Amino acid sequence: GAPLLLIAGPCQLESLDHALMIAEKMAAAAEKAGMGYVFKGSYDKANRTSLSGTRGLGMVKGLEILAEVRERIGCPVLTDVHEPTQCAPVAAAVDVLQIPAFLCRQTDLLIAAAKTGRAVNVKKGQFLAPWDMKNVALKLEGAGGERIMLCERGASFGYNTLVTDMRALPEMAKTGWPVIFDATHSVQQPGGQGGSSGGQREFAPVLARAAVSVGVDGVFIETHEEPGRAPSDGPNMIPLDEMPALLAMLGAFHALAREHPVRLPD
Amino acid sequence: GAPLLLIAGPCQLESLDHALMIAEKMAAAAEKAGMGYVFKGSYDKANRTSLSGTRGLGMVKGLEILAEVRERIGCPVLTDVHEPTQCAPVAAAVDVLQIPAFLCRQTDLLIAAAKTGRAVNVKKGQFLAPWDMKNVALKLEGAGGERIMLCERGASFGYNTLVTDMRALPEMAKTGWPVIFDATHSVQQPGGQGGSSGGQREFAPVLARAAVSVGVDGVFIETHEEPGRAPSDGPNMIPLDEMPALLAMLGAFHALAREHPVRLPD
Amino acid sequence: GAPLLLIAGPCQLESLDHALMIAEKMAAAAEKAGMGYVFKGSYDKANRTSLSGTRGLGMVKGLEILAEVRERIGCPVLTDVHEPTQCAPVAAAVDVLQIPAFLCRQTDLLIAAAKTGRAVNVKKGQFLAPWDMKNVALKLEGAGGERIMLCERGASFGYNTLVTDMRALPEMAKTGWPVIFDATHSVQQPGGQGGSSGGQREFAPVLARAAVSVGVDGVFIETHEEPGRAPSDGPNMIPLDEMPALLAMLGAFHALAREHPVRLPD
Amino acid sequence: GAPLLLIAGPCQLESLDHALMIAEKMAAAAEKAGMGYVFKGSYDKANRTSLSGTRGLGMVKGLEILAEVRERIGCPVLTDVHEPTQCAPVAAAVDVLQIPAFLCRQTDLLIAAAKTGRAVNVKKGQFLAPWDMKNVALKLEGAGGERIMLCERGASFGYNTLVTDMRALPEMAKTGWPVIFDATHSVQQPGGQGGSSGGQREFAPVLARAAVSVGVDGVFIETHEEPGRAPSDGPNMIPLDEMPALLAMLGAFHALAREHPVRLPD
Repeated sequence: GAPLLLIAGPCQLESLDHALMIAEKMAAAAEKAGMGYVFKGSYDKANRTSLSGTRGLGMVKGLEILAEVRERIGCPVLTDVHEPTQCAPVAAAVDVLQIPAFLCRQTDLLIAAAKTGRAVNVKKGQFLAPWDMKNVALKLEGAGGERIMLCERGASFGYNTLVTDMRALPEMAKTGWPVIFDATHSVQQPGGQGGSSGGQREFAPVLARAAVSVGVDGVFIETHEEPGRAPSDGPNMIPLDEMPALLAMLGAFHALAREHPVRLPD
Repeated sequence: GAPLLLIAGPCQLESLDHALMIAEKMAAAAEKAGMGYVFKGSYDKANRTSLSGTRGLGMVKGLEILAEVRERIGCPVLTDVHEPTQCAPVAAAVDVLQIPAFLCRQTDLLIAAAKTGRAVNVKKGQFLAPWDMKNVALKLEGAGGERIMLCERGASFGYNTLVTDMRALPEMAKTGWPVIFDATHSVQQPGGQGGSSGGQREFAPVLARAAVSVGVDGVFIETHEEPGRAPSDGPNMIPLDEMPALLAMLGAFHALAREHPVRLPD
Repeated sequence: GAPLLLIAGPCQLESLDHALMIAEKMAAAAEKAGMGYVFKGSYDKANRTSLSGTRGLGMVKGLEILAEVRERIGCPVLTDVHEPTQCAPVAAAVDVLQIPAFLCRQTDLLIAAAKTGRAVNVKKGQFLAPWDMKNVALKLEGAGGERIMLCERGASFGYNTLVTDMRALPEMAKTGWPVIFDATHSVQQPGGQGGSSGGQREFAPVLARAAVSVGVDGVFIETHEEPGRAPSDGPNMIPLDEMPALLAMLGAFHALAREHPVRLPD
Repeated sequence: GAPLLLIAGPCQLESLDHALMIAEKMAAAAEKAGMGYVFKGSYDKANRTSLSGTRGLGMVKGLEILAEVRERIGCPVLTDVHEPTQCAPVAAAVDVLQIPAFLCRQTDLLIAAAKTGRAVNVKKGQFLAPWDMKNVALKLEGAGGERIMLCERGASFGYNTLVTDMRALPEMAKTGWPVIFDATHSVQQPGGQGGSSGGQREFAPVLARAAVSVGVDGVFIETHEEPGRAPSDGPNMIPLDEMPALLAMLGAFHALAREHPVRLPD
């Protein structure tokens, strides 16, 4: 059994210093919890609820920061891409390209990401059944993708609400690819605040623990030293100083889950 | 932290010998796993998909069997009630009255059940939000109920499908009453076989493990020595000979969950 | 093509004078709109959100009022039943027995209702697929039911929300039985006000019009001279003085729908 | 009251002759039914379920055909765009740019489309509440969009299933922009055939009629002379020879709906 992978960071990149501060703390916390660590930071939030939502630092500045984090902290870095043309330049700076959930069926984006040779983490669309991620993985594989992660982040459940179906995790694992659980966006309340999305931070550790118990390969958690001041997803972020305890708890459940692997019939 | 409670049995009572056989095996397995045990058996399936579905042995015969199980095996017994007038005679023979999910809002049934003084286990309706179970508990409390259990068994998710929202478990625990997770009916596919319901047995242990990890007080599991021959709910039952390993696994997750209690802000 | 059937009344029976007042106005409005009319009034609200919700006048008093309305206004009357034993006495006083949505799978209640020989209007459970109402109709038919109506009142859609799937109407019509659209409860927000249900009155005429356009046989609408003072379902009731215009509008759409019958392949 | 707008075509552009054949028949049928007409054809299906699904003719060839249809048939033409850079060249050839549902939150795509000065038809995401389309419209308006259409095409409802909430139509109309109902994709069963999507063609006229009755400004319908041979969306397309009768029926409901406008309180 492999160690649990932690993908964590501040949602939006804010500055080099901020990124380094978070990456350093997370790398240390992950190591202490016996987890692998990938720094996550977005250079562009391309689908904010409204025009007035902060977009981010932009690709050039963002990639500089990500490259710097990778070098100084010594951890792999991940960021999301939104158009096929972004994939090559992003791949030059980062280790993992992430496909946002709304875009998980955009064939050209998947192909462009796979062709970079980098690892690709695809979020499952809120509108997609877990077994349909097999088709997404097949698109990546068909374009030469050799390192793929499939990421659960909640399914549409009525309006402005998501639900996490824990059956989705072993279901997606049937593809043979690692499965990641995004605890931050699974507790998002899309559009729940009118001009922006709400969230239920208190349930992120609950769902993360359930997901780890049924056997995921990694967890994705956004964090901030002061979530109320984060430019996006504040309502569902975990405060930075709560992360070490959260990781210790998840590590304990992961250790137990490894002793009891879930195996579904084909 | 209390030991985990196991509510288990054959769905429909079939005969005294069959009930004793299952109760004995389950009592032993529960003890070995460090769990409390309540035998569950129904004397009437009052809401089968179709008229041709087997109803059961009837109340008189069923209560005789339940009383006999209680005496010979020495474990508490549970059965479900469907009309207010059934509550008093059932309470004379069993320890826990169970309110079926479809009936969880029927005020008279709740009142009659509470007035017996017996413990009452209420299934959450597939149509109900977790926070609305507070109103159900208040009805029972208002009628003098002093031992209440609230039981999750899935929420409607499109047609012929249920989803388990793990947030529901700590949400219901806010009432202060014990929360039970029904792993068998949560993986039911209502009406999924046309004239009867289907099920996804393979996911029952997965969801049970997730539920135990986030901190329930008990699990409800239907079991049969040959599920394909059970008169109801066969597709989602756990084979009897797989129960000891399942309980051992759940016990391990429960022990760990007790070290990491979930506490939600009010 | 038959005229559209209007089932309308005040939700809870409040007094004889009140029932007569509403029945008289509705009978006149229905006649003017070219519709048949059935008075609806409940003697007991058996599944209120909380114990403090008003239950109603009780069966004895309620049936007296219903019988009086039938005699004086000359229209058929409908009320809902909640337990098998209520069916025979209720059938002695009313023309149509109604099965509440939560109870639409309770076999004994369906059988008892069918055995009275009265017409039976079954609400589709919020947790049921439209095609599964075939099984409900088969239960009634199997018990000798010869006049059955199947009634749509919304499907669970996330928490505290219903959605009306217009496909459900012709789907249920495949059974050969008349289909009724309940415009009042389809816009209910179950539990939406914490201790009681909310509603979206403004959408009741919208959904009723869509349902009539796709070809239902009747509409069910609750009305009150002052909905804000109604003992239940006020938020989704239509004010009494708005009913004549609403019926005229629905009558026009019904006339057009009759010229364009929907016929689904089997 | 304006005449109803018909947006219709073959889903994928197949050849110039094919496009002209369909556009000619549809223009004539629309005129006969008293409707405006916009030809719809896609040059690229950018989010097929699997890599093996036919993508289409490509942008260059597709835009040639669209320009030719516009000139020869004399009707406006519509096609969908998937990346910001496509907007300007597409706008040079067509009258209406369409934003696919999965992409309705992609800010850059919305801005680029709005900046062309062309009309923009945005499909509502299957994951979006109707009131959240206000934010989408605000993005277009903020980028100078002056002709916007908001298009309903179903909401996620469990797995592999959509439901059409008729409340969404007047809700979106509160924005002041015209509302279109996409009858073809609303009856899609996403991923319902494993490697491709299924559909329920028989319900497209049913839902279209309901939508027109509650007052939409236009309907979107894909059609093919032989749907079983269409390269995509065959299962939910209307056969070409059935379109004139369908349009006549919808025109009758539209005429009646205009006499009874729906007005929601703000």
